[in-house]
Amino acid sequence: MILDLCPSPALYPYYQKENDTVIVVDVFRASATICAMLHNGAAAVIPVPDIEQAKHYKAAGFLVGAERKTRKCDFADFGNSPFDYKPEIVAGKEVVFTTTNGTMAIEMGQESKHLFIGTFSNIDALADKCMESSERIVVLCAGWNNRVNVEDTLFGGAFAERLSEKADITLGSDAVRIALTLWQQAKSDPLAYLRQSDHHQRLIDNGAEGDAAFCLRENTTTVVPGYLKEEKKLRRQ
Amino acid sequence: MILDLCPSPALYPYYQKENDTVIVVDVFRASATICAMLHNGAAAVIPVPDIEQAKHYKAAGFLVGAERKTRKCDFADFGNSPFDYKPEIVAGKEVVFTTTNGTMAIEMGQESKHLFIGTFSNIDALADKCMESSERIVVLCAGWNNRVNVEDTLFGGAFAERLSEKADITLGSDAVRIALTLWQQAKSDPLAYLRQSDHHQRLIDNGAEGDAAFCLRENTTTVVPGYLKEEKKLRRQ
Repeated sequence: MILDLCPSPALYPYYQKENDTVIVVDVFRASATICAMLHNGAAAVIPVPDIEQAKHYKAAGFLVGAERKTRKCDFADFGNSPFDYKPEIVAGKEVVFTTTNGTMAIEMGQESKHLFIGTFSNIDALADKCMESSERIVVLCAGWNNRVNVEDTLFGGAFAERLSEKADITLGSDAVRIALTLWQQAKSDPLAYLRQSDHHQRLIDNGAEGDAAFCLRENTTTVVPGYLKEEKKLRRQ
Repeated sequence: MILDLCPSPALYPYYQKENDTVIVVDVFRASATICAMLHNGAAAVIPVPDIEQAKHYKAAGFLVGAERKTRKCDFADFGNSPFDYKPEIVAGKEVVFTTTNGTMAIEMGQESKHLFIGTFSNIDALADKCMESSERIVVLCAGWNNRVNVEDTLFGGAFAERLSEKADITLGSDAVRIALTLWQQAKSDPLAYLRQSDHHQRLIDNGAEGDAAFCLRENTTTVVPGYLKEEKKLRRQ
């Protein structure tokens, strides 16, 4: 099994291969939030790249989560905090979701053989799922406006380590080697390491510091959100 | 002074700001080779992005260095090894130069306020030069066909450390934080760390292992090649 990492959606054309399994990771916070929705009983998540589409769904009666620049959009029911999506509100419902970076990365990767949403919240379940049928796995980092970020790269390294404990893997390129080194350096205290990062500061500035700690916690769920091309929705796999 | 790093030429639009000083780094091997040419007395280096232009210059009587996929092109006088450019051949001459990744990165960065060529060979002279007039410096990694590579990222981290010893610097984004962590992890033996990398293997496969060791040696020259927009040439600054 080959594991690679693409550090930014804008680089995906240079990492893409046929029959890839793509893992979209947006550690702060879309990946954990999507996991939380499905963990709390949502029937599906409908990812949309732009605000206009999200508003259209809202007008049609859907529950809508929408975030731009770390903040909940005024028209939406929820923002991008995993704590927004309480079971009593989302259970059985389809939730429309758009975020600054995460949903764009889903759009980039949607032609892959499998697309899963991954993060620390579901790292072990994700590794087990990937081992079922993947030949080549690419961790596609959502980044920040196409810039590289520390937290998504760090997850790539953590996932490389975890997968290598469960299976024989080959590191596909230098990008995943860099991620693995970063993880080895930071893993004793990822939150402390991330305190210097761009996005952690943004979360603090927007009163979401508790979200950051939650988003780094491992295995809070066994849900692996998978993208179904025909219906353009994410469901539990 | 702000120091940032752009991990791939394809990401440069997302890192570019007005009045930047750009350092183009292609550790294996274009940066060291350009330094070697000017160190050995070449009057200028004329970087060209494609083979056709290089052939045109060759037909017009210029000395030409040309490499694709780690190998010297048949029509050229030299390849991309710093040892190719002996003083007795290049002294006083203008040398046309095209490589797989390095000259493309120069093309991307050529509208910046200053463009310098940097690598381990000239790291201290480069840091001193940058301190003369730069407000924001971006290390632009040449990468490999727009993919991220370990060696250029590693140099970004080494340069961040070196510059911070000489001046007060702010790390401009997560990309340079990742590079600095990578360097801190690898610096006790960069060559050993790079032995697993994609490009080091390519160099070995092409009989250029000695080049790799040379390209990681610090301060073999005080030459800082700088790009002059009007004449589209690199000269000693």
